[in-house]
Amino acid sequence: MKSGRHFLQIPGPTNTPDRIQRAMHRAVIDHRGPKFAELGRSILEDLKAVFKTQNQVVIYPASGTGAWEAALVNVLSPGDKVLMYETGQFATLWKNMAQKLGFDPVFMQGNWRTGANAEAIEAQLTADTDHKIKAVCVVHNDTATGITSDIAAVRAAIDTAGHPALLIADTISSLGSIDFQTDAWGVDVVVAGSQKGLMLPPGLSFNTISPKAWAACEAGGDRRSYWDWRDMAAPNEQGFFPYTPATTLLYGLREALDMLAEEGLQAVFDRHARHAGATRKAVDAWGLNILASNPAERSNSLTAVLMPDEKGANALRAEILDSYDMSLGTGLNKVEDRVFRIGHLGDFNDLMLMGTLCGVEMGLMRAKVDFQRGGAQAAMEYLAGA
Amino acid sequence: MKSGRHFLQIPGPTNTPDRIQRAMHRAVIDHRGPKFAELGRSILEDLKAVFKTQNQVVIYPASGTGAWEAALVNVLSPGDKVLMYETGQFATLWKNMAQKLGFDPVFMQGNWRTGANAEAIEAQLTADTDHKIKAVCVVHNDTATGITSDIAAVRAAIDTAGHPALLIADTISSLGSIDFQTDAWGVDVVVAGSQKGLMLPPGLSFNTISPKAWAACEAGGDRRSYWDWRDMAAPNEQGFFPYTPATTLLYGLREALDMLAEEGLQAVFDRHARHAGATRKAVDAWGLNILASNPAERSNSLTAVLMPDEKGANALRAEILDSYDMSLGTGLNKVEDRVFRIGHLGDFNDLMLMGTLCGVEMGLMRAKVDFQRGGAQAAMEYLAGA
Amino acid sequence: MKSGRHFLQIPGPTNTPDRIQRAMHRAVIDHRGPKFAELGRSILEDLKAVFKTQNQVVIYPASGTGAWEAALVNVLSPGDKVLMYETGQFATLWKNMAQKLGFDPVFMQGNWRTGANAEAIEAQLTADTDHKIKAVCVVHNDTATGITSDIAAVRAAIDTAGHPALLIADTISSLGSIDFQTDAWGVDVVVAGSQKGLMLPPGLSFNTISPKAWAACEAGGDRRSYWDWRDMAAPNEQGFFPYTPATTLLYGLREALDMLAEEGLQAVFDRHARHAGATRKAVDAWGLNILASNPAERSNSLTAVLMPDEKGANALRAEILDSYDMSLGTGLNKVEDRVFRIGHLGDFNDLMLMGTLCGVEMGLMRAKVDFQRGGAQAAMEYLAGA
Amino acid sequence: MKSGRHFLQIPGPTNTPDRIQRAMHRAVIDHRGPKFAELGRSILEDLKAVFKTQNQVVIYPASGTGAWEAALVNVLSPGDKVLMYETGQFATLWKNMAQKLGFDPVFMQGNWRTGANAEAIEAQLTADTDHKIKAVCVVHNDTATGITSDIAAVRAAIDTAGHPALLIADTISSLGSIDFQTDAWGVDVVVAGSQKGLMLPPGLSFNTISPKAWAACEAGGDRRSYWDWRDMAAPNEQGFFPYTPATTLLYGLREALDMLAEEGLQAVFDRHARHAGATRKAVDAWGLNILASNPAERSNSLTAVLMPDEKGANALRAEILDSYDMSLGTGLNKVEDRVFRIGHLGDFNDLMLMGTLCGVEMGLMRAKVDFQRGGAQAAMEYLAGA
Repeated sequence: MKSGRHFLQIPGPTNTPDRIQRAMHRAVIDHRGPKFAELGRSILEDLKAVFKTQNQVVIYPASGTGAWEAALVNVLSPGDKVLMYETGQFATLWKNMAQKLGFDPVFMQGNWRTGANAEAIEAQLTADTDHKIKAVCVVHNDTATGITSDIAAVRAAIDTAGHPALLIADTISSLGSIDFQTDAWGVDVVVAGSQKGLMLPPGLSFNTISPKAWAACEAGGDRRSYWDWRDMAAPNEQGFFPYTPATTLLYGLREALDMLAEEGLQAVFDRHARHAGATRKAVDAWGLNILASNPAERSNSLTAVLMPDEKGANALRAEILDSYDMSLGTGLNKVEDRVFRIGHLGDFNDLMLMGTLCGVEMGLMRAKVDFQRGGAQAAMEYLAGA
Repeated sequence: MKSGRHFLQIPGPTNTPDRIQRAMHRAVIDHRGPKFAELGRSILEDLKAVFKTQNQVVIYPASGTGAWEAALVNVLSPGDKVLMYETGQFATLWKNMAQKLGFDPVFMQGNWRTGANAEAIEAQLTADTDHKIKAVCVVHNDTATGITSDIAAVRAAIDTAGHPALLIADTISSLGSIDFQTDAWGVDVVVAGSQKGLMLPPGLSFNTISPKAWAACEAGGDRRSYWDWRDMAAPNEQGFFPYTPATTLLYGLREALDMLAEEGLQAVFDRHARHAGATRKAVDAWGLNILASNPAERSNSLTAVLMPDEKGANALRAEILDSYDMSLGTGLNKVEDRVFRIGHLGDFNDLMLMGTLCGVEMGLMRAKVDFQRGGAQAAMEYLAGA
Repeated sequence: MKSGRHFLQIPGPTNTPDRIQRAMHRAVIDHRGPKFAELGRSILEDLKAVFKTQNQVVIYPASGTGAWEAALVNVLSPGDKVLMYETGQFATLWKNMAQKLGFDPVFMQGNWRTGANAEAIEAQLTADTDHKIKAVCVVHNDTATGITSDIAAVRAAIDTAGHPALLIADTISSLGSIDFQTDAWGVDVVVAGSQKGLMLPPGLSFNTISPKAWAACEAGGDRRSYWDWRDMAAPNEQGFFPYTPATTLLYGLREALDMLAEEGLQAVFDRHARHAGATRKAVDAWGLNILASNPAERSNSLTAVLMPDEKGANALRAEILDSYDMSLGTGLNKVEDRVFRIGHLGDFNDLMLMGTLCGVEMGLMRAKVDFQRGGAQAAMEYLAGA
Repeated sequence: MKSGRHFLQIPGPTNTPDRIQRAMHRAVIDHRGPKFAELGRSILEDLKAVFKTQNQVVIYPASGTGAWEAALVNVLSPGDKVLMYETGQFATLWKNMAQKLGFDPVFMQGNWRTGANAEAIEAQLTADTDHKIKAVCVVHNDTATGITSDIAAVRAAIDTAGHPALLIADTISSLGSIDFQTDAWGVDVVVAGSQKGLMLPPGLSFNTISPKAWAACEAGGDRRSYWDWRDMAAPNEQGFFPYTPATTLLYGLREALDMLAEEGLQAVFDRHARHAGATRKAVDAWGLNILASNPAERSNSLTAVLMPDEKGANALRAEILDSYDMSLGTGLNKVEDRVFRIGHLGDFNDLMLMGTLCGVEMGLMRAKVDFQRGGAQAAMEYLAGA
């Protein structure tokens, strides 16, 4: 048995705050009764502010992967072309899913160190003169690489190209952490999950649906049942769901929405930016490199750090888990063993971040990695405004 | 604010025991770390005893409706015929899903008062000489009607007909409440959920997969991603999942499996039978009829009670909710307003049942329903062995 | 392992509602910090409404027995005479405590079936012409006998006698269940605990202090430290305590005060009266006798039931615990094995009461007690207004 | 609302681990029933290992101050002399209590920077030729000064003096954090509380009672009731208590005893020593002084740090609370505003400590205290073994 609190600093699921855990520790109620209706209606309404949208939001009892699938099968018909951009492992997995489901992804290759290139997207769309491409899918913040792509620029690219494709964005590791503006950026379908900026355990996921996406859904889409938006609309109006909802997670979501509103969304984003800033100061002081090569695309919810000589990340993570009871994110696929990822998102504060960065620095010492000390010191000076 | 504890006597979700709520009130852990692996492996192994199977069990972060879909899309190809039997609303919904997903359900009509007729199934299969029917789907215990069908008899019917169809059974409201023997009864795919006999909140669902079902999955099935059994196999071996699992519900499942093992599965079934017996005594004494007309098919997890003159169930339920803070199940579809349903499943005991039955009896009085008093008294005498 | 929820129907500690348990499931905070000050001040202020007083209320991290001791040592000097009235076991224990602490209790004998006799108290005080008696101690609701004494009548008796003695009342099993009016009834010191009508676990207890009691405290009292009211006054003004408070129980108390305010104190009292009424209907129908022989003195928070032939209560309780997982109160001292006690106080409702009464009735059957069936039926008819 | 977890780094109450909070989140049970008996017996037995004693341990539903009073009133008669040693504010408060209770404390003056001087105690006892002194009271670890006194040396002093006085030790902030050997050190009465090394919320306190202390209790002691050891003995044998126990805190205690046993007492002490060592490295690097001037007496559970110029501690603490959501201990009485105290005890680990020390260092920066940076860095190097 290890003493004290585990530091869960993977880039999600994040540390669920006590307040949310308490909110979920409640008896299940009749999901067809009047108390549930009130709960459901209030959640479906208040979610809109978090997505910055007037569009309908739907909730699935499913992990984020489910919301990926829902986003595709409701608007694409079998064989439809869909433009997807390789920003890292999660973009890759989403592309694989599109293939398995029988769509035809055009996968624009990336280097895992930079975000979606709006100019390249524009060129691709412009070339698609007969509008075979039905949707453009971009991961707003790729959890594997810590790269945040400019969704407003992607929107502009589509518009400039005069292309009718839908814009679909994955905000799984950005919603509630990094500003995302569904309506201002003209995003037709948003994909999100419960377990990162929303501070809940995993088990819920979300889509938002623009009028244009609704039209695509009504007119076509793949065969679907569990994910079918059309079955959601009527019961959702009363606060109900077409099948048994994950009631306790919804209790937690109600509390999470209250917490975000109390702190204020902009304050939440500023806090994440501040913690990301301190983390980057530490990485710089350690003499290590951040995977995201473009400073403007560095994520505020996680930082993927390249190992010197690009190896040994797994041994480092094991050392840190063993010696300091902290979980960090592993390097996935192309960056396996080359990077470790520090999650600094969700319900978090300066001292939790300093515990985290000190854990990394002590782990670097113990694992005899070639680095410079002083990262935690640099972060402290940043946080203390010194 | 109402004082005291709400009586959640819908036929599921059921009253989650404190012990399970406590088990779920824990920090989320790294779903790719060694502690999670241990948890995942132990759950996947211990679930087999509950299903009475040696087959692999897969877990979805989804409600039971998701496991319905998974059962179909993994073994059926588009256009495949599937035999389904109308035992009530849930059988009907499953059939509708099969249609939406592009399969071709042959829906054997029932009267909502009796279970699946094995002889009729046998006849249907015998007539299917070119084996167009790929699967037979039966709801073991239809939650809308309180009817338990004889799955062993369905198995025998298939065998007698010498038909190669897979047998798929929905045990959503029977697993952990009414004996179900996956292997002894030769069930190829089982569908189950977390929120009834397993005593958890909703949010997890299950399939078991026989070797024959695996073969069908590998050889065909529909296009699929989230529900794809094939993606489960490799990570499950290590205790992991192909996408982020609903960790807190898994903590609860671990505890539920321990609780069922401590009480003993047979003792759990006996307890449900005893409570169903007492409930039936009460209904008889009230001079009311049970929807399930065949005594051998009356469910041990819920009892659907017909109103005198077959109307007024909704008003009665509203009166009981208002006056006695108890939720009962509503009549669905063909039995709308004609029946109310008493759930007596999950984590339950004699005094909770008596509170429930007294609540129904007092509600009948208050709602001025034409009935005989003395139902609770009859149940007490049954329970006291008097 | 027993399935379902234990019925804790002893007359306290009572069933702690989930809402209070959740409120207590919080991190401890600095008991000298600003957040604690806010908590402490609000509790100390809001407690006054529950006691119906403008007097100061003090809180001890201690069980109710501690508040008994505090009530005595703050106003009595060694050797002081104190008039105490035998209403049952708890009055007897309080008298024993007064003796151990070196005071001189005059114990007016009762028969354990009737409450404090105001006329007899008046006579006793009138005879005490040189005012040797410094205080009159009465248990408002004796938890051992289920007898509620008329405290307003005791106040009138003291006034009629023109006697300066302080009036001290124990409301441990009545506060928050049965109307008690500290100021209107001129009670100088009230003794209360957390674990009955306040719905909390045990661990906190209370005194209220009238100006006259404060004067007695300042002028005299016994040597004292932990219980010393004088050390409370200054820190309490800021919301603090003179030594480390039981923070988590205070969180629960904050919630309990909110719950009582939401339901409304009078509604809480009416609810207890209604449940006591139904319980008495059941006891009558069983052909059993209630220990409290005077109907006007029958407690609304518990009912002590005499066994036929006044024996066998322990065997009955053991049978009920074993067969129906319900704890009832035992007969204490003079009524050992002669009575069992049904607690119907705290966070309670009609169906919990019916479960309780059915459990008693089934236990009477199983234990082969000589009684009439139909008690639960009578209670239901009372509760249904039939 | 502040995001993330509050750092409660006062020297107690400490951060209650989730596991204990969960254990306390349980329904209260009948404190006179068989399940409670089992709980009570197991706790009373297993507590002995934590105190390293074969003596009886008694538990009070009270804060530690109550156990101080119990230790005195059970063995001292009014007017008895008791030798007490000024190691800080808590020794002073205990002396004040002895006076209020009518005993005659001989208070050996200390300078708040060093522990109990065994030689001086020996001299005092040797001079007490007619054995007027009935007990020697020493605070093992004074929470106000962070000074640990050598209790074995005090024992030796008493023995060398050939004096029959009882030895009474307060271990409130050392038990479960710093080695304490009741039997090996011949301590007659130990005073302890729940809210520090035992990791529980406040509300329980303890005495251990040597045969010699029992003899003193039986032969004399002051008038007493709530605190009377004699009333504990008989019910404790069965696992019961003489009055209603604080059940939920006992659930937590059961869990705490399990946690200490799982980690191993010696490992727990080593962990506290390691964290104290790292903290001292940080204080040294900051160029600040530790209040405890004698390195051998520096506490392993807290560190009291002197401000430069011995002022401004309150402003620093306010800055740290406001900017970093961390509570530190205030300077009490003679060291008011001169010191701040860092608690590093209870359920704690390296990263929580680093968060704590970084919070102090950032606070020192923000409050513009004259100090050297690099304390957190020094602590990290200590903890990483670099």
